[in-house]
Amino acid sequence: MTGLPVITIDEIRAVAGKTLVLDTVRAALIAHAESRTQVPPPTHLAFEKANGECHVKTGYVDGSPYYVIKVASTFYDNHRLGLPSNSGSMLASSASTGRPAALLAEDGWLTAWRTAATGALITHALTADNAWVGVLGTGLQARLQIEWLSTLRPIPSVAVWGRRSEAASQLAHQLRELGLDAHPARRREAAARDCVITATASGSPLGSAHDFAAANHITAVGADMPGKHEVPAGLFAAANVIATDDHVQALSHGDFGHAVRAGAVAHDADIPVGAILRDEPYDRSSLSIADLTGVGAVDAAVASAVLGQLLGS
Amino acid sequence: MTGLPVITIDEIRAVAGKTLVLDTVRAALIAHAESRTQVPPPTHLAFEKANGECHVKTGYVDGSPYYVIKVASTFYDNHRLGLPSNSGSMLASSASTGRPAALLAEDGWLTAWRTAATGALITHALTADNAWVGVLGTGLQARLQIEWLSTLRPIPSVAVWGRRSEAASQLAHQLRELGLDAHPARRREAAARDCVITATASGSPLGSAHDFAAANHITAVGADMPGKHEVPAGLFAAANVIATDDHVQALSHGDFGHAVRAGAVAHDADIPVGAILRDEPYDRSSLSIADLTGVGAVDAAVASAVLGQLLGS
Repeated sequence: MTGLPVITIDEIRAVAGKTLVLDTVRAALIAHAESRTQVPPPTHLAFEKANGECHVKTGYVDGSPYYVIKVASTFYDNHRLGLPSNSGSMLASSASTGRPAALLAEDGWLTAWRTAATGALITHALTADNAWVGVLGTGLQARLQIEWLSTLRPIPSVAVWGRRSEAASQLAHQLRELGLDAHPARRREAAARDCVITATASGSPLGSAHDFAAANHITAVGADMPGKHEVPAGLFAAANVIATDDHVQALSHGDFGHAVRAGAVAHDADIPVGAILRDEPYDRSSLSIADLTGVGAVDAAVASAVLGQLLGS
Repeated sequence: MTGLPVITIDEIRAVAGKTLVLDTVRAALIAHAESRTQVPPPTHLAFEKANGECHVKTGYVDGSPYYVIKVASTFYDNHRLGLPSNSGSMLASSASTGRPAALLAEDGWLTAWRTAATGALITHALTADNAWVGVLGTGLQARLQIEWLSTLRPIPSVAVWGRRSEAASQLAHQLRELGLDAHPARRREAAARDCVITATASGSPLGSAHDFAAANHITAVGADMPGKHEVPAGLFAAANVIATDDHVQALSHGDFGHAVRAGAVAHDADIPVGAILRDEPYDRSSLSIADLTGVGAVDAAVASAVLGQLLGS
């Protein structure tokens, strides 16, 4: 194994275009919906003293040349050392021989892009093409959700809310630079848009069910751990379509799980995101909620696609 | 992360001496017994068509500079391609910042050595210094169990049994070359030794409780997955001491779990291997069984010790 290729983020950026990532993520989500994947439960380590955490996701899409173990960490005090908070590596091994094929030093970018792609695909599938969009959250993923959706279709208007109003102004400015009609907004204005995207690290719902009453669709990407919560449980009771990227993870880690535990909705009320993407066009006349937690098999598919470009598959 | 060091097996061999590994494994097992470790559940992938499997273990010993994710695979048909069946890599990251520190391309050797060290330490602790030894199994781990025990003390006699008698003759020959008095034996002779080591991939017990009746101690290293089984359940009922390297894994993956499910013994009848190593000398007057499944925190400790030698800790 001497000479294992370590793929740098620049090499990854050079080949991981939006079209490749979108096509790969769509196919992987459909495969996952059809049980043509292996996704063992994610595992975690916690480092209290260093204020850090590590998440390990393993995944495989049947027939793919590689299986992938992803190690992603966030150490919240790294900025004091002049280091990025997020670290991420994916180890890809041959699904024919088990031999390690490459380490992708993706530093969280492939994860960010597959989350953006998943969100954009399901938001696009479940909302009208002319929907006005509200986004709750001002971080990298909030920006990417809008940016990637805008590659799938024009977005007439974006209202941006964040806890810190300067951050909302800044994101709105960035989106205007991309040619979008975006402005900072109050929370209730953003939550009342036809299409709402939540991308925060919130530990409690971002509003009451009443606050979201005007929304026709919500894509929730923030809640990916048991302690996180964005969409109020009551709203799930009103939803006609509940889409999850992974049923088991959404139950244990996502907003859907909060709603089930609150008794708002049955534990089997969700359908796979991949089934909706496969069966488009889908009913868009009544409330839909997409709850995304991040699927190891989708990580594996994106890493495999990148390696396919770089090494040949 | 460009320039992540990939540590080759030759570099690992140069610093991973038996003393370093034994001291490290002993300290890690004691830390684990005292809940000073993090060991998320191991996860698995299975590749039916390629006849392979992959196991992912994550671990951390409190206060260590690194946490470690180990990816170990066995692809049983690799010999047809002229490749080794086993592949293994450990990704070590900083427990202060989460940044990847090194990839150890250990190809299963660190796992083999920590298993050998764990077995040797607990066998040494629970048997008389002049005990005659029987070993069931003729693979790498069978040989290493004897070899590493012999570094802790002289072994007067070794009886080797294997399903294939040529393999037993060959291992006995290898052990004689190390200066040991070893010979191939019938199964019942090896199982009747004062000290018995089982290191097979067997899916059913290697004999009846009666076959093992003369044994005063058994170290079982083979059963590390739900489908594997070496020591008959009935024997656990007769044991005065049941030692497990990890309680939860031994229940789900080990011989101890088979015995509990068979009703032979209570689910909390075991004590940690690390507690015995800490509290030596231990009662050796009646039957003891050590059931080893492999602990991610011990992997992490050994990898950290190797990196400490190579990179400075």
